[in-house]
Amino acid sequence: MAAPIEFYFDFSSPYGYIAAEKIDAIAAKHGREVLWRPILLGVVFKTTGMQALPGIPLKGQYALQDFPRSARYHGLPFHQPSVFPISTTAAVRAYYWLEARDPKAARALALALYRAYFVDAIDIASPDAVAGVAAKLGHVAPDVLAGLNDTATKDRTKLEVEKAMAKGVFGSPYILIDGEPFWGADRLEQVEKWLATGGW
Amino acid sequence: MAAPIEFYFDFSSPYGYIAAEKIDAIAAKHGREVLWRPILLGVVFKTTGMQALPGIPLKGQYALQDFPRSARYHGLPFHQPSVFPISTTAAVRAYYWLEARDPKAARALALALYRAYFVDAIDIASPDAVAGVAAKLGHVAPDVLAGLNDTATKDRTKLEVEKAMAKGVFGSPYILIDGEPFWGADRLEQVEKWLATGGW
Repeated sequence: MAAPIEFYFDFSSPYGYIAAEKIDAIAAKHGREVLWRPILLGVVFKTTGMQALPGIPLKGQYALQDFPRSARYHGLPFHQPSVFPISTTAAVRAYYWLEARDPKAARALALALYRAYFVDAIDIASPDAVAGVAAKLGHVAPDVLAGLNDTATKDRTKLEVEKAMAKGVFGSPYILIDGEPFWGADRLEQVEKWLATGGW
Repeated sequence: MAAPIEFYFDFSSPYGYIAAEKIDAIAAKHGREVLWRPILLGVVFKTTGMQALPGIPLKGQYALQDFPRSARYHGLPFHQPSVFPISTTAAVRAYYWLEARDPKAARALALALYRAYFVDAIDIASPDAVAGVAAKLGHVAPDVLAGLNDTATKDRTKLEVEKAMAKGVFGSPYILIDGEPFWGADRLEQVEKWLATGGW
């Protein structure tokens, strides 16, 4: 069995949301599993000197036009959050806390967090908001809050972001197939072809 | 007749090269003309505070891997130039000088300059190199050199870059369809769908 595809993403990234809605189906078509790895792009940007799209002249304005258009192109609902980007530390911590217990449930939570933020206009920055999204999936909110505040969870989150940076991850989504990197939701066609052909 | 599609590009941009090889055929399929508009991305970056890909940590390394892979994905030859990026002022001036005389010939020169730089490993930074590429298409090298040194040509070049910036152009390729902007060779599928459907 081939190693899983590595899928790195930031919960505040519209293109990460698009990829999150697509990546499992693309991988499954080619008999591959996906390892979901939320990261904190703000931490990554501090290292690389990059900045979030909205703050960049011209490019930022274009991005706000491209987000909904690209989502619609992929047949996905999208609503531009009024607070954007946001801190996603609580979301990432909740993910890794849950993943240690139930990887499938963690993935469902990740998708639910994305949809809360980019479809239902829920600001998922606070631990309470994250726990609220988890509660809708049947998790116990106080357990989630305790879990994401746990030192082990915080250390795990930090470690995963460091591991991602060590692999060269600098954006969201960032997909590794057997070490081959693909950056951006606009590389999903290439991801699919790479899986089908093993490269070109 | 609909207005032409506006195609902005920098001669030092690998993604611009990919789009240049594709855009006319895509437009023709939908009965549209293309207005080719070379720009000077270095001048644009001074305004926007952006920088060329190779200088950016992690992203620059990724780009060097993505250029040839994306070219091959599109069925195009590609050779990473050893000097990259380069000044393309001479190339842009030669384009506008020739366009004022023969727009079709100017487009052929643009493609020839791209292929010289990204396929045949010819550094097209100098006026002599640009005139050399033009000479292979049957132009008289001393005429090209005189033309690109002409004050009218220099003013025209400056004006076109300013006009592009006024329209929000911040990267290469940058395509405007009836005012709708598409940035990047990875938006060519969306460009095609937009032309076919008028939007979504």
